Amino acid sequence: MKYEGPVENLVRMLARLPGLGSRSARRMTLHLLTHKDDTLSPLIHTLQKAAEEIKSCSICGNLDTADPCHICRDERRDTGTICVVANVADLWAIERTGSYKGRYFVLGGVLSAMDGNGPEELYIPRLIRRIEEEGMTEVILALSATVEGQSTAHYIADQLAGRDNIRITRLAHGVPVGGELDYLDEGTIVTALKSRGNV
Amino acid sequence: MKYEGPVENLVRMLARLPGLGSRSARRMTLHLLTHKDDTLSPLIHTLQKAAEEIKSCSICGNLDTADPCHICRDERRDTGTICVVANVADLWAIERTGSYKGRYFVLGGVLSAMDGNGPEELYIPRLIRRIEEEGMTEVILALSATVEGQSTAHYIADQLAGRDNIRITRLAHGVPVGGELDYLDEGTIVTALKSRGNV
Repeated sequence: MKYEGPVENLVRMLARLPGLGSRSARRMTLHLLTHKDDTLSPLIHTLQKAAEEIKSCSICGNLDTADPCHICRDERRDTGTICVVANVADLWAIERTGSYKGRYFVLGGVLSAMDGNGPEELYIPRLIRRIEEEGMTEVILALSATVEGQSTAHYIADQLAGRDNIRITRLAHGVPVGGELDYLDEGTIVTALKSRGNV
Repeated sequence: MKYEGPVENLVRMLARLPGLGSRSARRMTLHLLTHKDDTLSPLIHTLQKAAEEIKSCSICGNLDTADPCHICRDERRDTGTICVVANVADLWAIERTGSYKGRYFVLGGVLSAMDGNGPEELYIPRLIRRIEEEGMTEVILALSATVEGQSTAHYIADQLAGRDNIRITRLAHGVPVGGELDYLDEGTIVTALKSRGNV
């Protein structure tokens, strides 16, 4: 038997979401269909509200109900520091720590010939313009430690080279807090050894 | 920073679905919000269609766009055999094999004092009535091999006791096809040994 129609459509659509396979999508579909009033209807409502109300901030690329977003509007935040992240998930991860009080810029990816992500697609010229116009004094390149992340960081650093008034920094590499040496890759251990500090 | 409003609502709602935690719900939320046109809008549409069109079959409890469902309407299926399952997922799992051509009855759970599932909540009186009225000759109790599943099976078998014209069966226990003995629990191995057959 094939379940064509709305059930199978829903399974197929959910299975395309990140983190769900066809089995978990089927399980979720069944849960939604057997809990229509207390799960399915509220979910539809919330998705609709999100689709209508949430937009991309035209300044930093964050997702928020307002444009500019509440971070860009917040006057208490440091306007001299900008943190460059690959995507909104990374921005949220940094915000959750509550330890950063500057501005952000979401690239929307990293430089990658395969994905067709050039400097224009990542709004890097706009980032450079913003850094200059707003007179930023520090640019934190919070990009992941992959080859693509690091080439993107290098590219942005190159674009800003020669400006003496701008400090370009990156996140420290090292042993994750709570991480066991035994489970770490050699590259991380080598980096942590090289960057060792006094106790 | 707290992301109140529609974003956080959506994360919270998705995190309550089976198989999703708060991290995967956040990841999914971001995916949906950054792919509004090609993912979020079609998903809302499909969920709405499912909410409107899919109903519970009033005869067997299956989910379908029609009531009675296509299994209950299918005249080529054997009307003398009924397969009792705990939920729609189990019905679908059996249907996917394509090897069963009888009718179904979805209990909607198993007997459990903790979950407040008594015989009435599981429509067991309705099941017994249906078996009698439709003159079923075989009742397959396809309930899981847990304590609750097996007490539910026993309860139903008790209700049908004394009717000589009804054969009550259950799924065979044994080594799963492709399963390695090494990874199986002892109970399964003991059962498989006891129920051994000639090669």
